[in-house]
Amino acid sequence: MSKIPVGVLGATGMVGQQYIALLNNHPWFEVHYAAASPRSAGKKYSDAVAGRWVATGGELPAGAADLVVGDANDVSRTLVAAKRGDCAFVFSALDMGKEEIQSLEEAYAAAGIPVISNASANRWKPDIPMLIAEVNPDHADIIPAQRKNRGWDKGFIAVKPNCSIQSYTTPVYALIRAGYEVKRLIVSTMQAVSGASYPGVSSLDMIDNIIPYIGGEEEKSELEPLKILGSIEGGSFRNAEYPKLSAHCNRVPVVDGHTACVSLEFGEKKPSLEEIKRVWTEFKALPQRESFPMAPAEPIIYREENDRPQPRKDRNSGKAMAVTLGRLRPCNVFDIRFVGLSHNTVRGAAGGGILNAELLRYKGYIG
Amino acid sequence: MSKIPVGVLGATGMVGQQYIALLNNHPWFEVHYAAASPRSAGKKYSDAVAGRWVATGGELPAGAADLVVGDANDVSRTLVAAKRGDCAFVFSALDMGKEEIQSLEEAYAAAGIPVISNASANRWKPDIPMLIAEVNPDHADIIPAQRKNRGWDKGFIAVKPNCSIQSYTTPVYALIRAGYEVKRLIVSTMQAVSGASYPGVSSLDMIDNIIPYIGGEEEKSELEPLKILGSIEGGSFRNAEYPKLSAHCNRVPVVDGHTACVSLEFGEKKPSLEEIKRVWTEFKALPQRESFPMAPAEPIIYREENDRPQPRKDRNSGKAMAVTLGRLRPCNVFDIRFVGLSHNTVRGAAGGGILNAELLRYKGYIG
Amino acid sequence: MSKIPVGVLGATGMVGQQYIALLNNHPWFEVHYAAASPRSAGKKYSDAVAGRWVATGGELPAGAADLVVGDANDVSRTLVAAKRGDCAFVFSALDMGKEEIQSLEEAYAAAGIPVISNASANRWKPDIPMLIAEVNPDHADIIPAQRKNRGWDKGFIAVKPNCSIQSYTTPVYALIRAGYEVKRLIVSTMQAVSGASYPGVSSLDMIDNIIPYIGGEEEKSELEPLKILGSIEGGSFRNAEYPKLSAHCNRVPVVDGHTACVSLEFGEKKPSLEEIKRVWTEFKALPQRESFPMAPAEPIIYREENDRPQPRKDRNSGKAMAVTLGRLRPCNVFDIRFVGLSHNTVRGAAGGGILNAELLRYKGYIG
Amino acid sequence: MSKIPVGVLGATGMVGQQYIALLNNHPWFEVHYAAASPRSAGKKYSDAVAGRWVATGGELPAGAADLVVGDANDVSRTLVAAKRGDCAFVFSALDMGKEEIQSLEEAYAAAGIPVISNASANRWKPDIPMLIAEVNPDHADIIPAQRKNRGWDKGFIAVKPNCSIQSYTTPVYALIRAGYEVKRLIVSTMQAVSGASYPGVSSLDMIDNIIPYIGGEEEKSELEPLKILGSIEGGSFRNAEYPKLSAHCNRVPVVDGHTACVSLEFGEKKPSLEEIKRVWTEFKALPQRESFPMAPAEPIIYREENDRPQPRKDRNSGKAMAVTLGRLRPCNVFDIRFVGLSHNTVRGAAGGGILNAELLRYKGYIG
Repeated sequence: MSKIPVGVLGATGMVGQQYIALLNNHPWFEVHYAAASPRSAGKKYSDAVAGRWVATGGELPAGAADLVVGDANDVSRTLVAAKRGDCAFVFSALDMGKEEIQSLEEAYAAAGIPVISNASANRWKPDIPMLIAEVNPDHADIIPAQRKNRGWDKGFIAVKPNCSIQSYTTPVYALIRAGYEVKRLIVSTMQAVSGASYPGVSSLDMIDNIIPYIGGEEEKSELEPLKILGSIEGGSFRNAEYPKLSAHCNRVPVVDGHTACVSLEFGEKKPSLEEIKRVWTEFKALPQRESFPMAPAEPIIYREENDRPQPRKDRNSGKAMAVTLGRLRPCNVFDIRFVGLSHNTVRGAAGGGILNAELLRYKGYIG
Repeated sequence: MSKIPVGVLGATGMVGQQYIALLNNHPWFEVHYAAASPRSAGKKYSDAVAGRWVATGGELPAGAADLVVGDANDVSRTLVAAKRGDCAFVFSALDMGKEEIQSLEEAYAAAGIPVISNASANRWKPDIPMLIAEVNPDHADIIPAQRKNRGWDKGFIAVKPNCSIQSYTTPVYALIRAGYEVKRLIVSTMQAVSGASYPGVSSLDMIDNIIPYIGGEEEKSELEPLKILGSIEGGSFRNAEYPKLSAHCNRVPVVDGHTACVSLEFGEKKPSLEEIKRVWTEFKALPQRESFPMAPAEPIIYREENDRPQPRKDRNSGKAMAVTLGRLRPCNVFDIRFVGLSHNTVRGAAGGGILNAELLRYKGYIG
Repeated sequence: MSKIPVGVLGATGMVGQQYIALLNNHPWFEVHYAAASPRSAGKKYSDAVAGRWVATGGELPAGAADLVVGDANDVSRTLVAAKRGDCAFVFSALDMGKEEIQSLEEAYAAAGIPVISNASANRWKPDIPMLIAEVNPDHADIIPAQRKNRGWDKGFIAVKPNCSIQSYTTPVYALIRAGYEVKRLIVSTMQAVSGASYPGVSSLDMIDNIIPYIGGEEEKSELEPLKILGSIEGGSFRNAEYPKLSAHCNRVPVVDGHTACVSLEFGEKKPSLEEIKRVWTEFKALPQRESFPMAPAEPIIYREENDRPQPRKDRNSGKAMAVTLGRLRPCNVFDIRFVGLSHNTVRGAAGGGILNAELLRYKGYIG
Repeated sequence: MSKIPVGVLGATGMVGQQYIALLNNHPWFEVHYAAASPRSAGKKYSDAVAGRWVATGGELPAGAADLVVGDANDVSRTLVAAKRGDCAFVFSALDMGKEEIQSLEEAYAAAGIPVISNASANRWKPDIPMLIAEVNPDHADIIPAQRKNRGWDKGFIAVKPNCSIQSYTTPVYALIRAGYEVKRLIVSTMQAVSGASYPGVSSLDMIDNIIPYIGGEEEKSELEPLKILGSIEGGSFRNAEYPKLSAHCNRVPVVDGHTACVSLEFGEKKPSLEEIKRVWTEFKALPQRESFPMAPAEPIIYREENDRPQPRKDRNSGKAMAVTLGRLRPCNVFDIRFVGLSHNTVRGAAGGGILNAELLRYKGYIG
């Protein structure tokens, strides 16, 4: 099988670099095209990222090094370049104003190039799916309606949610799928600095310190799970009513890996702690059943040690695509408490985007 | 006025050092006596702490340097030494087994030497007060009953609570005092490594990492506020019924300062955010009214910036004795959310102990 | 005595804030005037630094909070404002292009307002003194020649050296003054992130990492001591020939405090280790003899512990104005080795600038 | 080819764990035997390291998990166990007193089991080779003389040097091999906390701090290269006379990776900077020519960026077995300066030990 040629928009930023790194030797996809800001446009990719290659896991892949970077702001020319690269779809890791991202992503989709996006700009459009491949793969099936709404032929936009919600949304979904209503959830996150991109957070704020605030993050952490757990009704998404969610989001001196302390209230049916662990450790979904290349064998790993998960020790579990849980125990106020952890720039960004692309190819929307 | 001579048990440990540092030039108290483990016994205090003086705020005070350290395990001889030092009472920062601490603190009290303790060993005795001077100063008045129960003449034991609860207990009490019932509270803490003493937490666990577990800490964080907010009935303490409390306790790479993310549910009467801020910023109690030397002028400081409190920037507010709050906002699940911060080795340990001693002197129980 | 009114240029930056903080309650000087970038101009100082007040040692002083910030780029209007503030001299902590700083500092001096600068822009002018008050106070006496060269009446420019050299230049000078030639010196520094200002170094580069490079820092570290140890000949400075100096400069995850590992070769006369310690611990200079307000009682502190100096424990010694030394030992290659430490934003920046102003007032050049 | 069965002494410590991790799926060797302290003896290996598995690179290998740990202190019984495990040789990562390690390693060798050791205890025996496989592979050929001296038949002891010297010894050797005498070298290291084992350095000493001292480290850093660069004369080692070496060793808040700032003086023949880079980048030795499994393809990597090498970004280069260099530049005092970095628990510990074993098998001394 020959590989599907893909592009990366915002290819020189932190998430863009992570896409380039993770797509190296991918069995289905191959990067033929990269676009970034005007500052990088026209340079060789290796020159454009020289001195600021920050992707986890080593060196810049040889294949990507020689790509000539396009100007992501110049839609018409990048479209030509994308088509010349025979670009079947693009990953969007654009880092610009919200309206600009919306316009640019729409322009690609309108031109027949599907967009699989990390950006938050299009997450709340009622006909755009926000996908976690293990949780709501069927939300991809809004794509025909989306195309129809917008008069697009082959193109579409699909997005992934914010990195902060990955540490608790899949385990909550696993419990719901097993038949246990989840009514209320209070979460306090401790988020890695890579989530703020590079240079991001000043070292003066992260030595002997934490910052109990991340702009816009609590709103995303509270709302996005409701779209993901929601349903398609009449060609648009309807949010789930539950769980009611409240989030405290904190920045801590950790390179990669977002940790979440979760307190959770069930509906009337309340599983035992042992039942919950069983649900989590046995949880598999479409990506596992179909062995998608980027899918972790176990999407949820439960650790019995009393002091896990920890970001440095657990973030790379399951190719950095698993959610690691621990400390499941009763709660004086709600029903249970636990701690969740996931890798924010792999599962929470580029890795999650690639898994979504695999899902969309499996479903026949790309490729 | 001549100063009251005092002793410090466990004087060479981290909290003991903090007592020595904070009592330097105290207007009421003067350290005449220090006891520690057999390893340090017989040494000059300056030699016993050489190379491991870790107290905040600089050098070993000259006055303490020449004290000869007693053996805290040898009760009879340390009692003789304590009396020779004309020791009116002792601060206990003992770091040994729970039963040993109980025995030793009781032996001092039985010998007529009041014990003002940081240790958790005696916190749950029904006739021993657990004091935050701004919250429950009247709990000191169980001392006559305690003396009677135990056949003690001048001695008694009073304790302070765990460092983790300081960041939320005073603000919660301020709201209760202002007439607002607090029904439920979920808190997630991010605690400094100095709370684990020295050497405490390995650097291998605190570089690019957090640990979502501190042994015994969640239980203390949930229960101790209930005794403090409780009442004396018939010569023993009765816990408050509310708030129901649930705690997640995390260790983070911060030197000093415990941060708490709090979600809180009121009873039927629900104050506005403005009213809550008014209650907090106007809060004063006995230590402020009587200008105790260790009391902060403002026990609760509210900061309006959206990213405060932060440990490195706010822990030293109010001589490191104030609680700094911020980020008061509505909660989707309960009524309000906020972030609190206090200095764990000053307000949460030695400073809180000294303020308790000031309270007990004011009330005539020592001096 | 009424205080001398002073101004601060670049008042909202990290070093400017440190000036504002350290000049609070200064017995000789009082801030009447502050200028910064156009972005801050016209704002109240407290508003201009809101949310980014980073100076060591607590809160924004009340006196400075209400100053209206001038536009440092608009020379004529700031000069009017400076004069209206009855500004006897200014501290320059300007953070802009080298030529702009030169022009602006010269404009102030030409207008009769002496400039005491932290900036590197004017350090290598042959008629501008680069002062460490304990080392080369007599270099101030080039000021009459400087005024004459430039046709200035009351104004002049005096600068302080880079923060990186403070940890070794004074101890080296003390040995030279005691009669021991210092021929060669190899130094490797580990420098705090506050030296890069705010936001400065990304947290992604300072968690689990060090950076073995600081732009321009090695050149400054090697050359500046030679001007300071040099002499005035015919109205301009002549560099010292020795010591030959080579520097490695590294950035490490420390908030404040630059550490230097020094290997040093003497000339023919080689002091014993005991003699060296004696020279250092007995070293006093003009600022100590005349008790300048900002001068540390002991400019050089030697610690005997084998693992000191350490930045967090020693940077605040002597009001953060002392150099702390330790680990003096023989060297297999040169004669001796030692470790030095000084506080980079106090001694190495604003504190050093204020001490220079005290020296210049003592010598009658300002006030 | 069936794999050679090997044992690991001190298997539960940090270096021992690293051996277990790196030997997983090794093409030549397979762990059949593990010994540790009496506390771990009799336990399954997975239980003995439960909660303190710290090796880089993920989970405990399944093959090792079920090994029953022997008591390393009980020589006779562990020898029986070792032989039962059909143990062809052992890796020693023992962490006990120097004399105990010497006795134990000698007992194994005397019993016919070669010992490839990380411990410093036997490094200075005149008939024991201290090997860096790329630098002095011929030093292995002292083994026949060692066996004869000690009356040993099949057994012998070979050691590896300290982790701190790996960042500069191979590049210095490469220059010497290319015909350039290296006369003098001053090095200042910034060493990772994993070098102090677990729990090792307290987090209170590594947040916002560095420690300019590591016990015994400077002596090792100065002396060990001289044995490695020395020669065998009459059945014992004779140290090289040059380079004269002086080391400052510092502990910094980095998990893995020792960085060295090196200043170096050549003899009369002085290569250009370009020639030096050529020598380094073209350097290959026996392990590369023979493609030993643990050997990096390029033992020395030179990076042209001005701010490299950095520990977090470069420590894993060449399977964490390469030395990464950068910042080659002239020196005002000596001839050149550069920065070197190597992974202290892989190249500097278990990986280096395994590469030595591969060398010794290649030379026919084991297997």
